[in-house]
Amino acid sequence: MTGIKAAGQKKLMLFSGRTHPELAEQVAEQLGIQVVPTRFQDFANGEMYVRYLESARGSDAFVLQCHSDPINESIMEQLIMVDALKRASAKRITVITPFLGYARQDKKHLGREPITARLMTDLFATAGANRLMAVDLHTDQIQGFFNGPVDHLFALPLLADYIKSRVDGSEATVVSPDAGRVRTADRWADRLGLPLAIIHKRRDPEVANEVKVHEVVGEVQGRTCILVDDMIDTAGTIVKAADALYEQGASNVIAAATHGVLSGPAAERLQNSRISEVVITNSLPVPKERDFDKLTQLSIAPLLARAINEVFSDGSVTSLFDG
Amino acid sequence: MTGIKAAGQKKLMLFSGRTHPELAEQVAEQLGIQVVPTRFQDFANGEMYVRYLESARGSDAFVLQCHSDPINESIMEQLIMVDALKRASAKRITVITPFLGYARQDKKHLGREPITARLMTDLFATAGANRLMAVDLHTDQIQGFFNGPVDHLFALPLLADYIKSRVDGSEATVVSPDAGRVRTADRWADRLGLPLAIIHKRRDPEVANEVKVHEVVGEVQGRTCILVDDMIDTAGTIVKAADALYEQGASNVIAAATHGVLSGPAAERLQNSRISEVVITNSLPVPKERDFDKLTQLSIAPLLARAINEVFSDGSVTSLFDG
Amino acid sequence: MTGIKAAGQKKLMLFSGRTHPELAEQVAEQLGIQVVPTRFQDFANGEMYVRYLESARGSDAFVLQCHSDPINESIMEQLIMVDALKRASAKRITVITPFLGYARQDKKHLGREPITARLMTDLFATAGANRLMAVDLHTDQIQGFFNGPVDHLFALPLLADYIKSRVDGSEATVVSPDAGRVRTADRWADRLGLPLAIIHKRRDPEVANEVKVHEVVGEVQGRTCILVDDMIDTAGTIVKAADALYEQGASNVIAAATHGVLSGPAAERLQNSRISEVVITNSLPVPKERDFDKLTQLSIAPLLARAINEVFSDGSVTSLFDG
Amino acid sequence: MTGIKAAGQKKLMLFSGRTHPELAEQVAEQLGIQVVPTRFQDFANGEMYVRYLESARGSDAFVLQCHSDPINESIMEQLIMVDALKRASAKRITVITPFLGYARQDKKHLGREPITARLMTDLFATAGANRLMAVDLHTDQIQGFFNGPVDHLFALPLLADYIKSRVDGSEATVVSPDAGRVRTADRWADRLGLPLAIIHKRRDPEVANEVKVHEVVGEVQGRTCILVDDMIDTAGTIVKAADALYEQGASNVIAAATHGVLSGPAAERLQNSRISEVVITNSLPVPKERDFDKLTQLSIAPLLARAINEVFSDGSVTSLFDG
Amino acid sequence: MTGIKAAGQKKLMLFSGRTHPELAEQVAEQLGIQVVPTRFQDFANGEMYVRYLESARGSDAFVLQCHSDPINESIMEQLIMVDALKRASAKRITVITPFLGYARQDKKHLGREPITARLMTDLFATAGANRLMAVDLHTDQIQGFFNGPVDHLFALPLLADYIKSRVDGSEATVVSPDAGRVRTADRWADRLGLPLAIIHKRRDPEVANEVKVHEVVGEVQGRTCILVDDMIDTAGTIVKAADALYEQGASNVIAAATHGVLSGPAAERLQNSRISEVVITNSLPVPKERDFDKLTQLSIAPLLARAINEVFSDGSVTSLFDG
Amino acid sequence: MTGIKAAGQKKLMLFSGRTHPELAEQVAEQLGIQVVPTRFQDFANGEMYVRYLESARGSDAFVLQCHSDPINESIMEQLIMVDALKRASAKRITVITPFLGYARQDKKHLGREPITARLMTDLFATAGANRLMAVDLHTDQIQGFFNGPVDHLFALPLLADYIKSRVDGSEATVVSPDAGRVRTADRWADRLGLPLAIIHKRRDPEVANEVKVHEVVGEVQGRTCILVDDMIDTAGTIVKAADALYEQGASNVIAAATHGVLSGPAAERLQNSRISEVVITNSLPVPKERDFDKLTQLSIAPLLARAINEVFSDGSVTSLFDG
Repeated sequence: MTGIKAAGQKKLMLFSGRTHPELAEQVAEQLGIQVVPTRFQDFANGEMYVRYLESARGSDAFVLQCHSDPINESIMEQLIMVDALKRASAKRITVITPFLGYARQDKKHLGREPITARLMTDLFATAGANRLMAVDLHTDQIQGFFNGPVDHLFALPLLADYIKSRVDGSEATVVSPDAGRVRTADRWADRLGLPLAIIHKRRDPEVANEVKVHEVVGEVQGRTCILVDDMIDTAGTIVKAADALYEQGASNVIAAATHGVLSGPAAERLQNSRISEVVITNSLPVPKERDFDKLTQLSIAPLLARAINEVFSDGSVTSLFDG
Repeated sequence: MTGIKAAGQKKLMLFSGRTHPELAEQVAEQLGIQVVPTRFQDFANGEMYVRYLESARGSDAFVLQCHSDPINESIMEQLIMVDALKRASAKRITVITPFLGYARQDKKHLGREPITARLMTDLFATAGANRLMAVDLHTDQIQGFFNGPVDHLFALPLLADYIKSRVDGSEATVVSPDAGRVRTADRWADRLGLPLAIIHKRRDPEVANEVKVHEVVGEVQGRTCILVDDMIDTAGTIVKAADALYEQGASNVIAAATHGVLSGPAAERLQNSRISEVVITNSLPVPKERDFDKLTQLSIAPLLARAINEVFSDGSVTSLFDG
Repeated sequence: MTGIKAAGQKKLMLFSGRTHPELAEQVAEQLGIQVVPTRFQDFANGEMYVRYLESARGSDAFVLQCHSDPINESIMEQLIMVDALKRASAKRITVITPFLGYARQDKKHLGREPITARLMTDLFATAGANRLMAVDLHTDQIQGFFNGPVDHLFALPLLADYIKSRVDGSEATVVSPDAGRVRTADRWADRLGLPLAIIHKRRDPEVANEVKVHEVVGEVQGRTCILVDDMIDTAGTIVKAADALYEQGASNVIAAATHGVLSGPAAERLQNSRISEVVITNSLPVPKERDFDKLTQLSIAPLLARAINEVFSDGSVTSLFDG
Repeated sequence: MTGIKAAGQKKLMLFSGRTHPELAEQVAEQLGIQVVPTRFQDFANGEMYVRYLESARGSDAFVLQCHSDPINESIMEQLIMVDALKRASAKRITVITPFLGYARQDKKHLGREPITARLMTDLFATAGANRLMAVDLHTDQIQGFFNGPVDHLFALPLLADYIKSRVDGSEATVVSPDAGRVRTADRWADRLGLPLAIIHKRRDPEVANEVKVHEVVGEVQGRTCILVDDMIDTAGTIVKAADALYEQGASNVIAAATHGVLSGPAAERLQNSRISEVVITNSLPVPKERDFDKLTQLSIAPLLARAINEVFSDGSVTSLFDG
Repeated sequence: MTGIKAAGQKKLMLFSGRTHPELAEQVAEQLGIQVVPTRFQDFANGEMYVRYLESARGSDAFVLQCHSDPINESIMEQLIMVDALKRASAKRITVITPFLGYARQDKKHLGREPITARLMTDLFATAGANRLMAVDLHTDQIQGFFNGPVDHLFALPLLADYIKSRVDGSEATVVSPDAGRVRTADRWADRLGLPLAIIHKRRDPEVANEVKVHEVVGEVQGRTCILVDDMIDTAGTIVKAADALYEQGASNVIAAATHGVLSGPAAERLQNSRISEVVITNSLPVPKERDFDKLTQLSIAPLLARAINEVFSDGSVTSLFDG
Repeated sequence: MTGIKAAGQKKLMLFSGRTHPELAEQVAEQLGIQVVPTRFQDFANGEMYVRYLESARGSDAFVLQCHSDPINESIMEQLIMVDALKRASAKRITVITPFLGYARQDKKHLGREPITARLMTDLFATAGANRLMAVDLHTDQIQGFFNGPVDHLFALPLLADYIKSRVDGSEATVVSPDAGRVRTADRWADRLGLPLAIIHKRRDPEVANEVKVHEVVGEVQGRTCILVDDMIDTAGTIVKAADALYEQGASNVIAAATHGVLSGPAAERLQNSRISEVVITNSLPVPKERDFDKLTQLSIAPLLARAINEVFSDGSVTSLFDG
């Protein structure tokens, strides 16, 4: 006999970086497994070291890392994790970045700029990633930056169902804080069966340069406004948008976004604003010092777990978002 | 002596496919050269053949092709031209696609779709392209699809200067025909110093599904409206937008776009519409049967020639659009 | 537990472009499956769109397309189909091109020509093809253009068995219409156990330039001649060859080829020629207007189905042609 | 039904070049299989030809070749074998080089040198290798030359266990023949629980240039010295080291190394030296004319077979060297 | 000032492996330069070492090596030379293989064979070659194996001019020794304005299997026959062809080929044959023991030098073969 | 005329990240130019942004960044800078990392570890680097990790000349703090013409496990010991080595290393140690809080500037270190 035959087998394994262990554990729990024990070490000069404490050979490896502060370390750690898996003979490596760092730098506005979002997908491919999984990419085109399968997940059902349970639909309106990002709001309006309003920022022709007027398009008078976006970073835009809505007679403003970046003054601004509730997912960890009373965080762990399971079992990720 | 030293020299050469020879000749004239004589042949079964009648060895080659009807042949012809240049030892190959075919398929809306715009840039890279040059890409992110330099040119100065000469600025408004494409209109408003209006399409809550209301945001009453977009394809959107503007009291509507795709019913629709003038560039050829009285076509040849010259002489393409 | 184990499974799926749906359905029938339902759409400017209506995740995908008129669209459609499969997480993608477009442009005769056959295999690899399957490539070296497995199938057994049933072997001769393609005829002669003749075209020294004499090498007087080649395109060569054979006293001439390209005047030429029967396979569709009385088309669907099955089940494609 | 489902299966197959068939057969025997029958042919001008006599389709292929004299042919033969497997649709190809040729050329000492060890790993990757397996690479960094998994095996347990059975531990010392290679000796000392000595070669300040003194660091007086290294090539270093040890009062000297290159004068030098026994593995074949009385050769076949089995069954190669 | 500008300069340098130093020196002399001094070393176990004794930084490097016996070493040496040049920062590397090793293994005849000719071009690309230059490749399709420029040179003018000076054209005939290689003979007949004959080998229907008859097509009676091919390896074919020609009444037979591989019994066979003269080029070295009285060797050094010069100076290699 | 000819020109431009602007300015000054003005921006969530304020088109770009604390940001910043240059049409990009981050993770000690040094060179290649320049890489093999030219510079002449001016050669000894790194000390001893000593760390057989004895090999009694290494990180090794030397009667100990990483307790340890002087280069910035009295920092700017100049002018970097 010139060969040994054996039944093919596959093994799902979940690996996690250090930025958001709670999310990884939630995902693992949903899957009924444990995160693979991993040794992390930081050397005195800031170099990081990773070693898996179990064999990853032949595994269908999912590597979860949230690109949160300090963001460059978190990206580098994930790259190193992927390299180690590639050299450990993992069969397939799916990089999971619930929030993809640098996603907003997805084009050149001016000459001699980088396109760092593309650089990111290239770096992961170079390290050894075969596939990407991400939630609500800043623009859909980023899928095209990666030369392979991207599982693009949507937090909309999760967020919208929560909002639905909190708001009287007959008196609510979905609002896009920026005309340029109206597509996200369109999807919300479709899903919730609500009317849509748009805030358009324009120069005030009466006043000198750089001053902007927030014009509200659509009916908001006496209505609960659901301000929606893919992320809340420093919260400047969203707070000004809320002010504009109240000026136009809105009775209440709720803000909803997938990614709670919540950088710098965000927590303070939001807490002190007239926004009544801020709803985000845990695609990024919210450290205690950035948490605030009005903040509601929903877990995307069930979504990630279901998607991982579909990928592992050759099911359909698309089906998760049908109907 | 173990080597021969010689002064480095570089040689710009312009190659053109068969879809828009007039544009190529205009560009060549601007550069003070001639398009490289090339033999094209179509075999009986539709296969194409290309051969250059002059040596391209060591050249800084620019390969111009408009992706117009029949679009797949025009793309394939350009790919074959690039392959022939690569094998003919051209030093550097810049693919010029004034209008890039399939640019609108730049993301997956649904599962199991292609991202054909990325496929296009990959195909050109595979054939041998080192660089791309394009005018007003449908979305800026497409630059990130190519792993190399993209010279992204803007027809805005050309179009806007023409419009400026035709319209009384004190009574004009720039209009975006779709909230999702407001960024293009923003640039127009900035350049012309005009106010901006937006048309937002939404479902009419009074009427059954799929019927859309075109809501106009911004002041258009009694004003000349300049409807702007990157392209006019079947002209359905733009004609409906014009109707909405007239309903809101616009005194005049002009349409301006970089790319005159003008497919199917476009020419007839536009000619029969209430739009008074349609201004496009010659980034795509307009065959006689699609031409119509209201159509004004401006030549981008000077723009392409200047950009080619900056690329060849290591100047600055960015500078073409400063100030 | 740190992982989920599951039995490996594989799933054969057959996808088809739009140029030859009958062949795809025949192959599917042979395999006992259905072609995957796919939505195709042509946009007004000629851009094509593809979407699979079933999940292809993890599949062993076979993508069949005949490169027939309009040949560049048919190639582009297949490229787009492959891109969509790659992004849909197919596990392995085999491109099936019964007739590979541009296969005759497999070398440079002159400087500054492309090698379009190599370009084709590169384009498919770039789109995401892992493997190729083709029937009777114009030259065997094309297998070397692809950096991966090529399943090279031969229609000879199919065609030869048919011929055998129609011709009295004791009075038949295999004829190569060109000395440069004698290898194909050699294989026919070997398989059928028949003598071989060759037609050599040479300049007539008596007459002015470009006039060719068709010299027949081998015995054809009073015999049934089986003219064989890999393809019949415009049929000029084959009809002149038949004339030469009759002049040398052949009693009957049959033409056999794998690929019925049948471009331009081919159908008329063949029907009006002294060839008694033209035998081809359905590696390319024959539209009604190109069909003619003398034409016999044999189905390669069983061959393709058996090969697909061997590939899927890790059997041996080589074994299909042994003995 | 649109697809055929089948259980995944995998098949281990072992292929061997012609330089060390005994080792391949030992490995096959350990695995309970046979080496795949292969036809090798040498053409008159030295070109080699390879063909497998069984289908390798879908196999998990392991290709064993010892890079021994004539070393360039042996490498080229293995490259050709890998190419044939890639084109034969093997699923995964692991190149096994018990001794990797050119491993010592792993860096540039001077300008304008090659890094041939990196070139080797690149050539194997280009031919189609997905993975490498090697024993005691000259430097550990060579693992980093390959962009994929490297199974790095250690002969230390095999060699050390043998030595242990031959030597009285209470009076033995491990000796590194060169300070720069002390890491190998460290591992020996750790495993055997023996003290370590180092031979440092330095210029003799008393004598003119280029004369070297072999200084022995550590206690060797009256002890059995185990001189260890990764390979013995021409044996010059090891014989001089042994002389130095005897001068320092060593009672006995044994030499142990993984790779018995034994080039040129090695056999004669060792046989005529005061070294009492030379222990190597069969990572390289020892032709009769290079064999000598003092030589003991241990088989690494069991080690290779266990590693192959772990790779095939997605076990852990690391575990082979734990504890 | 933020940069230093300097005039571009280029420097041609010629490097040579060790198989055919005379040819390299002839080429260098034609170019008016010297071959770059290079240190070669063979280690005891057969590994080779290369170092250039002059800086190659920024050079336009041409690396000449004849793939002659021992052919695998000669190929490996050239690969190592290319790696060293790549790492030494050469600007462009052109590999010159007057005779490309393994060129005859350019396709799969049977399943599970390699395509070693493609492997060769891939290995050179991997090592760092940007371009290839070769003389009379065995099949033209090999150009398509390399993904870049191939300068394909023809020795026909050189050989044909010599033959012309030796033969009375009014009584000479060009003969192809095999119908499958008639294209080479066609080019000879065109250039010399001579008639063409073909030798077709076929089974003798009268005699049992494997016996071949050499049938001569075309007029050879009383004529000087010029047997032409791309190479003469063991000379079996060519000698049998000559015998067949004499049997058909040829008055004289001369053999001409670009590559004198002359393996095994070739020299003896040719010397003892009825062929009156054998004309080859020095694309391969002819060691003394393979030389024989009837052999004439013409130098391709002027051809290589002119081609190198055209490549270096961005001239036209095509022009060398026009008119 | 079908082309424009122009003289080739090249332009050296120096770009610098933000970790060590002083070094960049020193290098620029040596070259007689200015660092290219660049806009850096840190977004609130830690993402970085880079834009060059001058055209880099066609430039020979050198991008200097010291991989110092915070090391992952400094690496990411350099990657982003390279991406921006690639997209800005720089002609050639040389990444300069005087100290390459993660260089010590150049191999797998254990299973399931990464090889982060290789990952680093891959990331730079992916971003667009054509060449690397580094000073005293931790191991020479790292040159082989990059598939292209690496300019490997040595600080030895700089450091050794300084030491020579400070020490009486007749009573000095070069000391390697670790037997495994004796090659660095060898080069020092050769250059200074001094004797060499080695410190070998070994387990103390008298005492329980993990306790190490520092054995000194070579004469140090009454001598000035120059402890040399490639880097000083936390300074633990070097301080213990110095203690051992004093115990053996050394009269004075000086430490010299190329890279002053000086992490964590390094500054305090060294200041409080019996080492009289610590000599390093400025390959890494030494922030004020890590500076200390005994520290001498020599500038490598002249070395970098000379190397850049040789690279730009196609000179010889090797020549910088000859004689």
